[in-house]
Amino acid sequence: MSAPTGPALDGLPDGLPDGLLDAFWAYERALMADDVAELDRLFAPGPDTLRTDAAGTLVGHDRISAFRGARGGAPRRRVVDLHVQAVGTDAALVSATTELERGGRSQQTQLWQCRAVEGPDGTLEVRWVVTAAHVAVSPPAIDTRVWRVVGDPLVTGAPEGPLSGSTVAVKDLFAIAGQKIGAGSPAYLSAAPPTTRTARAVQKLLDAGADVTGITRTDEFAWSLFGANDHYGTPPNPHAPHRLPGGSTSGSATATSLGQVDIGLGTDTGGSVRVPASWQGLWGVRTSRNAVARDGVLPLAPTFDTVGWLTRDPALLEVVGDVLLPPSVQEASSEIVLATDLLALAAPDVRDAVEAFARRLGTVMREPFGSRELPTWRRTFTLLQSAEAWQQHATWVASRLHTLTPDVRARFEAAARLDPGDVNAASAELTGIRLEIRHRVADRIVLLPTTPTTAPFPGTADQRLRDTMLELTTIAGIGGLPALNVPLRTADGLPCGVCLVAAQGRDRDLLALARTLPVA
Amino acid sequence: MSAPTGPALDGLPDGLPDGLLDAFWAYERALMADDVAELDRLFAPGPDTLRTDAAGTLVGHDRISAFRGARGGAPRRRVVDLHVQAVGTDAALVSATTELERGGRSQQTQLWQCRAVEGPDGTLEVRWVVTAAHVAVSPPAIDTRVWRVVGDPLVTGAPEGPLSGSTVAVKDLFAIAGQKIGAGSPAYLSAAPPTTRTARAVQKLLDAGADVTGITRTDEFAWSLFGANDHYGTPPNPHAPHRLPGGSTSGSATATSLGQVDIGLGTDTGGSVRVPASWQGLWGVRTSRNAVARDGVLPLAPTFDTVGWLTRDPALLEVVGDVLLPPSVQEASSEIVLATDLLALAAPDVRDAVEAFARRLGTVMREPFGSRELPTWRRTFTLLQSAEAWQQHATWVASRLHTLTPDVRARFEAAARLDPGDVNAASAELTGIRLEIRHRVADRIVLLPTTPTTAPFPGTADQRLRDTMLELTTIAGIGGLPALNVPLRTADGLPCGVCLVAAQGRDRDLLALARTLPVA
Repeated sequence: MSAPTGPALDGLPDGLPDGLLDAFWAYERALMADDVAELDRLFAPGPDTLRTDAAGTLVGHDRISAFRGARGGAPRRRVVDLHVQAVGTDAALVSATTELERGGRSQQTQLWQCRAVEGPDGTLEVRWVVTAAHVAVSPPAIDTRVWRVVGDPLVTGAPEGPLSGSTVAVKDLFAIAGQKIGAGSPAYLSAAPPTTRTARAVQKLLDAGADVTGITRTDEFAWSLFGANDHYGTPPNPHAPHRLPGGSTSGSATATSLGQVDIGLGTDTGGSVRVPASWQGLWGVRTSRNAVARDGVLPLAPTFDTVGWLTRDPALLEVVGDVLLPPSVQEASSEIVLATDLLALAAPDVRDAVEAFARRLGTVMREPFGSRELPTWRRTFTLLQSAEAWQQHATWVASRLHTLTPDVRARFEAAARLDPGDVNAASAELTGIRLEIRHRVADRIVLLPTTPTTAPFPGTADQRLRDTMLELTTIAGIGGLPALNVPLRTADGLPCGVCLVAAQGRDRDLLALARTLPVA
Repeated sequence: MSAPTGPALDGLPDGLPDGLLDAFWAYERALMADDVAELDRLFAPGPDTLRTDAAGTLVGHDRISAFRGARGGAPRRRVVDLHVQAVGTDAALVSATTELERGGRSQQTQLWQCRAVEGPDGTLEVRWVVTAAHVAVSPPAIDTRVWRVVGDPLVTGAPEGPLSGSTVAVKDLFAIAGQKIGAGSPAYLSAAPPTTRTARAVQKLLDAGADVTGITRTDEFAWSLFGANDHYGTPPNPHAPHRLPGGSTSGSATATSLGQVDIGLGTDTGGSVRVPASWQGLWGVRTSRNAVARDGVLPLAPTFDTVGWLTRDPALLEVVGDVLLPPSVQEASSEIVLATDLLALAAPDVRDAVEAFARRLGTVMREPFGSRELPTWRRTFTLLQSAEAWQQHATWVASRLHTLTPDVRARFEAAARLDPGDVNAASAELTGIRLEIRHRVADRIVLLPTTPTTAPFPGTADQRLRDTMLELTTIAGIGGLPALNVPLRTADGLPCGVCLVAAQGRDRDLLALARTLPVA
């Protein structure tokens, strides 16, 4: 790209620092050529260089370079407006407006400094480099990583009610009359007929005055905990930039974090509300088994499936509970116990955050929950979940395995091969494990880390993390117990969470407690 | 707001310039208090100060101050991450991430400089001021100024066809099965039943392989040319920031400008495609009377209503024509004539752009079209349009005038009071005027400015502009002629347009010509 001439670029002041504009245009040319080496050369080396866009701020030349190497080029653009503010002779701010070939604009602010930097042969050379850049590109009509359909609103709620003025994002597993259920799978979506009825949980929120803003992305068939979706792109995690959002209620969680809705409606089979709540800094609740009707919700594994929701605000979390939950069971103990052995499964930064929370709470007992059986329980859970998922979806999935993303495909394939004897044995064990978990929780509230770590970067989320995570989340999953994520922050400011697990039916107790908790 | 302490803000380097952070926090406090005077004091005085956000870059302290005074405060926020790059001792870049109380984040880059500036008593004082700022706030799920509903896609087109891979924004006057028609009026929308069929023009685009992305805002009942909508907010004009988008096909035009869709589908009764095309730098066509079926399109004034569309690319404009238009009438003359007297109705910057276009074309005749009758024709058009609009909408509107925005309400009220004798007289004159216009255009292509000015700022668009604009647009409107906007730029880089008007039925000729035109 050569320097354009034209009216929009005529207003530059005289006497700009030597070489500045040459460097600016060299950068534009390199960007259009996706010449990563040249872009790297034109950004200041070292740990203090900044690059900000809608996803967040990247700090340090190395992370910026890694980002550039991975993104596969920038959109074609043309500079249409340019302003330069010289700061002495060795620094200048350059503000550029560009028009994108695909339509829309980007706005870019760069701080250029003329510095001695190391050249390719190791000697120092003095030249212009960008030390900070801020780029904002006009967004698409909807972020299709987060949403499948959005309206203003999509469905209008009753004019009056306890949720009047609130907006809801609905995970793409719930029926909404006139809409399809897509379940995070393009092939499933394209074969699905529009539904004629609205899922009971969604209808109750509408009747309580909430508006449904739209339908959000989920991991394929809700069968993951990381929130990655290769079909539609992984929803962003606004409070942990560039990291995974958590799943499978990923879209509803991101929409809530972004302030696009007040309530994210989802499901939690093995942690699908709690994990994104923890990783995105949200309040989130998984309800007691069968406490909230699942009519009109696409099942994954009915023995473990529950409805749950996420909010930024614990008071609203409770109001949603008032609308969706049955009346409370009788009062139970308010004793709170920190499960020390479960805490030990978490990374140090998460452990510290949970410990600090427990200290703020004050009257917390500390005792082990018993973690020896966790791997066994996790395997039992996974086996039964797989068997039920296959039972639910085999008719559709069996001939369409090729349409699935590799992870979910592998899970369905493994499910198809399960030995019925193993399934029966696991099934027989389940009741005993459930009773054991309920016995250990008893009438107390048990504290454990919701997730063992903060949100990982894509590519670093592995089977080991998934296993440890499931060992924490299946306690409520197998127990059929309500579990609530309280958002915490690590010392680095990243979201994590403490999970409060209580006896079956004590959902409302947890929600009432949530509002009183000393979060920070 | 006091300076927060916390892990996210611990990473600041030592030895920052004196007073910089105090000034930064003073700015945050003033922002939260909406203390416009203090914000003005903390931004550098003079014409070079910059403020960039999603709407564009404001240049100069005065415009920034005016913007602040009008916006009614910034969203509540909390700084969660802060990076400072000192540039010597008198300048520093401050990059801040803030969390908004309503959810989501903002990213902010400021260049602070320590300067001698005039104090309140006229004496000079040396202090820190912002010379450039760039703010980006995480966006809502959809921009409800532009869209009513958006999907990925909302309606999927046929798998193969000439428009395969293209996306369409549909003005909220066209029926889409299962969706309501809202017509830019919340009251009308809330009373509307979902339609069962899809408008024929939309269905043809779907059958040709285009996907419908969503339904876009329009001026109320499509009865305006400015694109302002007090109910939903005025869609932005990406290529003329802070100015009006043009209407009534405002949302489809903005969505196309923003690159959110490839095709903006709309209607043009008195200029509703041509005006936003001109003001937003788009190709846009109003079709010949009855050339494209209007089944399933809410009428405004059937005698003048036409279907039209906008694109960024003239080739695509023509492909849409191939899909929607009947076969061409016989070949006609390719003589092109610039209507000198119509050109004289435009502002000097628009005139210059049209003249430059005509020079690039080369073989253009210059002669007056005849402008003496234009005010009369415009009045005839307005009278008949009003009479038909009342006939179309009286049943619904008559008891709901209070739900309308003042301008449109006034138009309906005037329409209700029309003297039937005047309407009959105008009706009798119409055929004569139509024949006269057709006679003047003959088999040639007439060039005229699409709009007399570039997009005005809200508040400066007045009845006089509307009248002059209508005098230009009603030539095709009354004539029932096809009219195509070719996007041009003024010397200041603002969009404007030249309009090509041809004989009835020569729509395809215009579209074929469009691709060959020397736009810049």
